[in-house]
Amino acid sequence: MTQKVKKYAEGRRSVRAFKRKPVPIDIILDVLDTAHYAPSGANEQPWRFIVIDDSDTKRKIREASEKGEREMYEKVSGSFKDWLLEHGLRPVKPFLEEAPVLIAVLMSSTAKYARESVWVAVGYILLALEEYGLVTVPYTPSNTSYPLEVLAAPKDYRLEVILPIGLPDDDSQRTDRMSLESLVYYNLWGNKHPVSPR
Amino acid sequence: MTQKVKKYAEGRRSVRAFKRKPVPIDIILDVLDTAHYAPSGANEQPWRFIVIDDSDTKRKIREASEKGEREMYEKVSGSFKDWLLEHGLRPVKPFLEEAPVLIAVLMSSTAKYARESVWVAVGYILLALEEYGLVTVPYTPSNTSYPLEVLAAPKDYRLEVILPIGLPDDDSQRTDRMSLESLVYYNLWGNKHPVSPR
Repeated sequence: MTQKVKKYAEGRRSVRAFKRKPVPIDIILDVLDTAHYAPSGANEQPWRFIVIDDSDTKRKIREASEKGEREMYEKVSGSFKDWLLEHGLRPVKPFLEEAPVLIAVLMSSTAKYARESVWVAVGYILLALEEYGLVTVPYTPSNTSYPLEVLAAPKDYRLEVILPIGLPDDDSQRTDRMSLESLVYYNLWGNKHPVSPR
Repeated sequence: MTQKVKKYAEGRRSVRAFKRKPVPIDIILDVLDTAHYAPSGANEQPWRFIVIDDSDTKRKIREASEKGEREMYEKVSGSFKDWLLEHGLRPVKPFLEEAPVLIAVLMSSTAKYARESVWVAVGYILLALEEYGLVTVPYTPSNTSYPLEVLAAPKDYRLEVILPIGLPDDDSQRTDRMSLESLVYYNLWGNKHPVSPR
């Protein structure tokens, strides 16, 4: 029998096209309730969540994010630019306006192991959303200072990620993963010999 | 009915005392299979996992980690030192030797959004372990270069965390969490008014 957590991990994919159907706020709060149980460095719980469903605010977040993207796309070159183009990525981020709800995940910049802790909580959010049949794509703006202005966040908080959330409006597949065998070593880097059963 | 992911998130606690009973390697690999489905920046999958169950290697990892802890404890002062002492933390890390198995999570230092991605995968691991009734404590050595030497990792990989894994040998409780209400804002920092249902 497949474990539940594995089922949700394996089943989820990043989606950038959303149906307009609203997501009940109770579900969003249940997902954040899940996230807030994540462990954190020195139990400082460095995360803060802004739930955004107001159309006007979503539009402003989109415009602020795209401003930073355009600046980045003008500057970027080399293999990262190639990668962006190959993957059809563009400076426009319509999903920030089209998804029925966004969760902006902010982080106290003074907490110990803040980034590590916040992203454990993001992992919890991704799996909790999948259990609810909801999809997202973790999107970190190239320049977070613009959307942070829109959100009126204090100076000691950073924007780690925006999660646009809703029902999927595409049939995209999960990206490929490397084989587990190529990612796991035993007792020493490079040792492919499995641990012997006890 | 409580969602499964929330149940595992709420149910888990960090544990530093482990029974000596071995953990089947199949379970460890299933947990890592779960982790390797995590999304990553540009799908670079920057994680590598070293499964350590050899007693001699565990002892070396403990000694290497404690060397860095002793150096840190000699230097540290102020509120962090107070916090360490209040929480009974010490430079000795017996769990690195006593847990039946360790997972060392390494990260490619050249990948985009590597730390963010790796810690989403760590979140997946924590929930997958909880589903199996196994416990851990995410432990990041104060100086990762010493244990990295033991593991013979290449220079472009960093050690993000060591997860000692096993069955709990204490009855410690989950640390307290702030109320969800104090962590969530609506549409704007500081706005406590919930999103109205549609």
